[in-house]
Amino acid sequence: TTLDEYETVGRRDRHIRLNVSGMMFETWESTLHRYPNTLLGDHARRQRFYCPETDEYFFDRHRPSFEAIFRFYQRGQKRSQHGDIEKNNRLVRPKNVPVEIFYLEMKFFGLESAVIKECLEKDNYTEPDVTDVELPTGKLKRKIWLLFDFPESSPAAKFVGIISIVFIIISIAVFCAETLPEFAESAPEFPPNGTITSHLRLLYSQPLFQAETACIIWFCFELIIRFYACPNKCTFWKDPLNIFDFLAIAPYFVDVVMVVANYHPSKTSGAVTVVRLLRLFRIVRIFKLSRHVKGLRVLGKSMIDSIGPFFLLVFLIMIAMTLFGSCVYFAEMEHPETNWESIPDTFWYVIITMTTVGYGDHFPVTAAGKLVGGICVISGILTLALPSPAIVANFDKNNKMSKNIISEEILEKRLRSD
Amino acid sequence: TTLDEYETVGRRDRHIRLNVSGMMFETWESTLHRYPNTLLGDHARRQRFYCPETDEYFFDRHRPSFEAIFRFYQRGQKRSQHGDIEKNNRLVRPKNVPVEIFYLEMKFFGLESAVIKECLEKDNYTEPDVTDVELPTGKLKRKIWLLFDFPESSPAAKFVGIISIVFIIISIAVFCAETLPEFAESAPEFPPNGTITSHLRLLYSQPLFQAETACIIWFCFELIIRFYACPNKCTFWKDPLNIFDFLAIAPYFVDVVMVVANYHPSKTSGAVTVVRLLRLFRIVRIFKLSRHVKGLRVLGKSMIDSIGPFFLLVFLIMIAMTLFGSCVYFAEMEHPETNWESIPDTFWYVIITMTTVGYGDHFPVTAAGKLVGGICVISGILTLALPSPAIVANFDKNNKMSKNIISEEILEKRLRSD
Amino acid sequence: TTLDEYETVGRRDRHIRLNVSGMMFETWESTLHRYPNTLLGDHARRQRFYCPETDEYFFDRHRPSFEAIFRFYQRGQKRSQHGDIEKNNRLVRPKNVPVEIFYLEMKFFGLESAVIKECLEKDNYTEPDVTDVELPTGKLKRKIWLLFDFPESSPAAKFVGIISIVFIIISIAVFCAETLPEFAESAPEFPPNGTITSHLRLLYSQPLFQAETACIIWFCFELIIRFYACPNKCTFWKDPLNIFDFLAIAPYFVDVVMVVANYHPSKTSGAVTVVRLLRLFRIVRIFKLSRHVKGLRVLGKSMIDSIGPFFLLVFLIMIAMTLFGSCVYFAEMEHPETNWESIPDTFWYVIITMTTVGYGDHFPVTAAGKLVGGICVISGILTLALPSPAIVANFDKNNKMSKNIISEEILEKRLRSD
Amino acid sequence: TTLDEYETVGRRDRHIRLNVSGMMFETWESTLHRYPNTLLGDHARRQRFYCPETDEYFFDRHRPSFEAIFRFYQRGQKRSQHGDIEKNNRLVRPKNVPVEIFYLEMKFFGLESAVIKECLEKDNYTEPDVTDVELPTGKLKRKIWLLFDFPESSPAAKFVGIISIVFIIISIAVFCAETLPEFAESAPEFPPNGTITSHLRLLYSQPLFQAETACIIWFCFELIIRFYACPNKCTFWKDPLNIFDFLAIAPYFVDVVMVVANYHPSKTSGAVTVVRLLRLFRIVRIFKLSRHVKGLRVLGKSMIDSIGPFFLLVFLIMIAMTLFGSCVYFAEMEHPETNWESIPDTFWYVIITMTTVGYGDHFPVTAAGKLVGGICVISGILTLALPSPAIVANFDKNNKMSKNIISEEILEKRLRSD
Ligand SMILES: [K+]
Ligand SMILES: [K+]
Repeated sequence: TTLDEYETVGRRDRHIRLNVSGMMFETWESTLHRYPNTLLGDHARRQRFYCPETDEYFFDRHRPSFEAIFRFYQRGQKRSQHGDIEKNNRLVRPKNVPVEIFYLEMKFFGLESAVIKECLEKDNYTEPDVTDVELPTGKLKRKIWLLFDFPESSPAAKFVGIISIVFIIISIAVFCAETLPEFAESAPEFPPNGTITSHLRLLYSQPLFQAETACIIWFCFELIIRFYACPNKCTFWKDPLNIFDFLAIAPYFVDVVMVVANYHPSKTSGAVTVVRLLRLFRIVRIFKLSRHVKGLRVLGKSMIDSIGPFFLLVFLIMIAMTLFGSCVYFAEMEHPETNWESIPDTFWYVIITMTTVGYGDHFPVTAAGKLVGGICVISGILTLALPSPAIVANFDKNNKMSKNIISEEILEKRLRSD
Repeated sequence: TTLDEYETVGRRDRHIRLNVSGMMFETWESTLHRYPNTLLGDHARRQRFYCPETDEYFFDRHRPSFEAIFRFYQRGQKRSQHGDIEKNNRLVRPKNVPVEIFYLEMKFFGLESAVIKECLEKDNYTEPDVTDVELPTGKLKRKIWLLFDFPESSPAAKFVGIISIVFIIISIAVFCAETLPEFAESAPEFPPNGTITSHLRLLYSQPLFQAETACIIWFCFELIIRFYACPNKCTFWKDPLNIFDFLAIAPYFVDVVMVVANYHPSKTSGAVTVVRLLRLFRIVRIFKLSRHVKGLRVLGKSMIDSIGPFFLLVFLIMIAMTLFGSCVYFAEMEHPETNWESIPDTFWYVIITMTTVGYGDHFPVTAAGKLVGGICVISGILTLALPSPAIVANFDKNNKMSKNIISEEILEKRLRSD
Repeated sequence: TTLDEYETVGRRDRHIRLNVSGMMFETWESTLHRYPNTLLGDHARRQRFYCPETDEYFFDRHRPSFEAIFRFYQRGQKRSQHGDIEKNNRLVRPKNVPVEIFYLEMKFFGLESAVIKECLEKDNYTEPDVTDVELPTGKLKRKIWLLFDFPESSPAAKFVGIISIVFIIISIAVFCAETLPEFAESAPEFPPNGTITSHLRLLYSQPLFQAETACIIWFCFELIIRFYACPNKCTFWKDPLNIFDFLAIAPYFVDVVMVVANYHPSKTSGAVTVVRLLRLFRIVRIFKLSRHVKGLRVLGKSMIDSIGPFFLLVFLIMIAMTLFGSCVYFAEMEHPETNWESIPDTFWYVIITMTTVGYGDHFPVTAAGKLVGGICVISGILTLALPSPAIVANFDKNNKMSKNIISEEILEKRLRSD
Repeated sequence: TTLDEYETVGRRDRHIRLNVSGMMFETWESTLHRYPNTLLGDHARRQRFYCPETDEYFFDRHRPSFEAIFRFYQRGQKRSQHGDIEKNNRLVRPKNVPVEIFYLEMKFFGLESAVIKECLEKDNYTEPDVTDVELPTGKLKRKIWLLFDFPESSPAAKFVGIISIVFIIISIAVFCAETLPEFAESAPEFPPNGTITSHLRLLYSQPLFQAETACIIWFCFELIIRFYACPNKCTFWKDPLNIFDFLAIAPYFVDVVMVVANYHPSKTSGAVTVVRLLRLFRIVRIFKLSRHVKGLRVLGKSMIDSIGPFFLLVFLIMIAMTLFGSCVYFAEMEHPETNWESIPDTFWYVIITMTTVGYGDHFPVTAAGKLVGGICVISGILTLALPSPAIVANFDKNNKMSKNIISEEILEKRLRSD
């Protein structure tokens, strides 16, 4: 069997003694040679630390850190055939050693970059000299790019960012205000036989539409100039934030085109729904804020990471809806004051009850219905408590990682290198 | 007293020195001989690691792991008469050593399988070469069994699983749709003097009943073929999932039989309730999903593990119902607008208040009633916070265990061995 | 200054080397003599472990445990004048050593009972041979006491416990049922000129009162026999559970006396309230359950331990009530549809909003009121999240302690010793 | 590159061996000299611990503590150019060493005060002999100051504190009672042609105004005498509690002045709002309680510390309001029973739904609206779960810190030194 390999021969090759600040480590030379490109694995490099009088290598280094590094040599690259139990075979930082100390020790003993990086990532750290931010090559383009995409890079960039936020907020306020009765009632009636010019003049005479137009001009300007300056035209459209930028603009032009074309969907046709959805689409510009608010980006990333527990939650809620919904329906179906006409009718009741919202628009009135309702509430509380810890944990993790990235410093360095 | 045993004689037998990568461990030979079938306890096996020049046994192994393994020898099998304080006398993995490293060290030092298994279980791990999945012996039966019970075993099995999920969802949708007014109103009226054939024709002319029949055919087919192929006919019916499979089918046939027998329970008799319960029973087919969704199985197991805190919660809620219910009843009993006619009437109010649902169908109107209501809400919030952590912890634990089992790999191996 | 004491002279007295399974500890003899009654502090006792060839004391004991025990000697009893920073100067179990191992090591090295007890208590453990359960001296009394107070002591005691629970549940059910319209309407009308005997006959003819009487007879019997058998008549009445026993009986006799005295408080007088409170008092018998359900006792103890965060919570809620109540009152006072006539009127709204119950009987209708309401909800959610962790932690702690007490075993031992 | 610095030459200067209770530490003399003013760094001071026969320095001190102190020497003051990864380069207490033990070890080895303080702060501890409480210099002033600001300093001070609390509670009760219909209706009507004296007489004849006046007299007296006795007139007004003291008094005098001036703002003018806000301002006196209740101060500090997650929460709620509000508006806009006239109208619905309050004054009635509502609830629950842990953690931390400050003892000492 495969277990024979565990009990290797006791005696192998040259015995080596490492004295790390007084703590003794002994091993075979072959163990150290498993990583020949490191300080310990390379005979020439480690020789500088050799003390002939005591026949040991003396290192005035951190002892608890070395305990972990030493284990890394002992375990080696050898992987058994049971892939999954060995998948964690990597350098693990001892819990009582701070990251920055362990980082310096790994550097001192010359471990490979990949090993260091993997170890840091496990602690949600990024190595300081990582260089994964792509910048445009042209000098003008780079300046524009930094101005619009890196608010921390200069006071001017900060100012541009603030302008951008102001326009986003204005455009959302306009979007909300349009539905207020004061404005909705004073909306222009386009005479069916009016000319395009008269229509446009009427449209642009409205103060809310003027404000909207100003915002759209800025959004267009921003999107075009950023597309011009972006380091890579292809990856530009892969960033969902840029897609949102585009989608935030589109409905405006559809609106204008519809006025120009003097198109009025009849109220009964499905086109009304499409037009309304298109208007609703303008709300995506709220996601443009996430370019400026780090907390939103962290939250978005956490959402994506928590997709597993989130789907389980949705799935559990759907099962509970069917289960409790049909139970409460059958319990109440004969009662004259029952609120529910069918099982799908009870779904709303179940979700509002499980989440403990309880609007009071529907509630059971029979004893059996109340029993089902009580069980439903308690199940809901317990069900909703399950995924929360995982999502909170993901948020914390992403929050920490976002703090350990040091993009500004990289930026500074790279700008200085121009 | 029994405490005399603690202070044993200092000097015993041969002194043994173990050098584990430079860390010295010293003990008596008798300590190591407590487990004579292990590497350290067996004189011949450990002799290979003996260094005569230093009179010590040298092991190039993981030091923190050995600290725990060494303690295992020191403590030995001896159990004092105070059973409960010794119940944890087993090998404990140090917190700072990863499971897979400790596993390899336990293997190296040749500890017994039972000890290793117990230690791994404590960490929610299962040893990789565990073989507790029972498979049928015949080749055809095995193929069928894998096809229906192990969706990961082959693409065909995955396809069968998806078909199964689709049928479950359709049958639940039919169940819900039946209660919609559109369908409920068009339900057939069986003429009292109609023949069986005409009744059945009428029944099977309904589209919903046709869909239901299709699902039932698939469920029957699945259950029969799985029963045919199952490795053990007795344990088959011990699995609650198979019971659910059966219960999901039964109501259909009762329905058909009732139509054939032209039996219509009079509205006033209790038989209506039985028939309605039978129809409600069809909802158990939602639990058939748990065969296909691991999250549901984990949740089910967690529920069973959390039965203790759950019962305490139910018990506390019942006490609170009686306590706050009677207080609020007496506080409000003289008020003309009181909502409650008796103490049992207030139970629904108390549970809806403690869980912070608050439909608003009942609420206190007097000052005394509001005081009781306020205390009731706060008690409820604190009471419901008590069991949640335990249930969440159980879910996490079961979730981890479900990931550390490696059934697919075992399956593969066992299939290859055919 | 007082800091001079820290830098003591380096060289003191005889150097002592302790070899604990290969790990070397060195100290001065005076350090060990700080606790002269222990194994290490007593020259004669420790001499048995002396190895003259290496001039060291060899102990084949647990190394991580000894690290903590050794520190205990080094720190000694000396207390600096800064009382508060030294208050934790006691033996602390290292986190990575299980309690039962550390217990045996403390026993081996002969530490004082007080030190061991203090150390175990910190871990919510009780030493196995604790003897704080008081039992009556007479043989008959002891048998009765065990029968009624220790359900685990014998099957008969378990049976008595179940009878007791049944009677408690019956009496609570009767209490609730009395208020049902069916029974409340058939309550007897005592004719003003009736004789005592006719009144009593009428009273005892009611089925609910008969059931209540049966329960009261059992409760009286139980209380009297337990009082007769109790080991200490004084401490008997100090136990709140016994007070509850008495209070659960009292209202019955007041009722009977009132019927006998033919006393009917006029509806307008305050005596009605007193009578009603007396009737409500019967609900305290629900607390009699806590003698039989350990979970309730643990909860009660946790409540008492959590009195601090609980009072802070109540205090915060009261401040929030005044603060948000007056804000919402002033915001809504001019609105014709306002729900609140005064600030105290808004208190109920605030508490129902902060706890997210939201019955919907009151809600703000002005923009300012809605703003206050929104802030109120969020403050409430955050406020209520503060004390929950402390209360949950106390519950967990008490839960663990209740499991680590081994009363049954003690009982057995003490009974055997008769 | 900068990585060259890591691999320093092996051999440097004199090798030094430190024996800490049997655990050996070896290093170069230059490492110890990095902190020349400490026990180890100063040749003369450490010489007292030198053992010539073994050529080592022997310290009978705590070993796990020294592991951390030794690392402090090894790392030294050297800072690499990557500022941010070194920012934590300070003395870190090992998790398994209690604070008070580590404190004594740091003191013994003579580390600098700044280092000790920084290390203690990380554990939420304050060094015992910190002296940051400022006291007035004059003897009388000091006595007054202690009387009013340090309730624990003497029984008289405690009594003054209780009087203060009683007056605060009375004044808040008066504030609330004024709005009760009983009192509001009996409010005096000042005849437009009345004299100032008659107005004042009318005003002061009201019992509530008399009670209010008594409170104001005490508040004024307290504020004036505390201002007289305060150690620093400038910092006095920087303390928000003193500002609250002033703001709690001001509205009273405005009220009196308005009566004297016979000023009655017309109901339609904005002055009514100002007057009402001024009256509402009296509620700030509730914050005067925080001088007397430590829990409130801790909560206030935690709020300030949690400003980050709190703003993120508010921001997320606002985004959710816009997002779900517009979705639910568009979903329900065509329905005849819709509750919402515009998007801003739905904001209240969204916040009441996300917080699971659910008054039931607004709820969706269409299927699309219910879908949006359901998503809204679940988003709300998850969103509100995010900042709670951070706020609870801050509260816990501040709670611990408030317990580790030992102001009373300092006070005693400083008073004794007079
Ligand atoms: K609610
Ligand atoms: K509600």
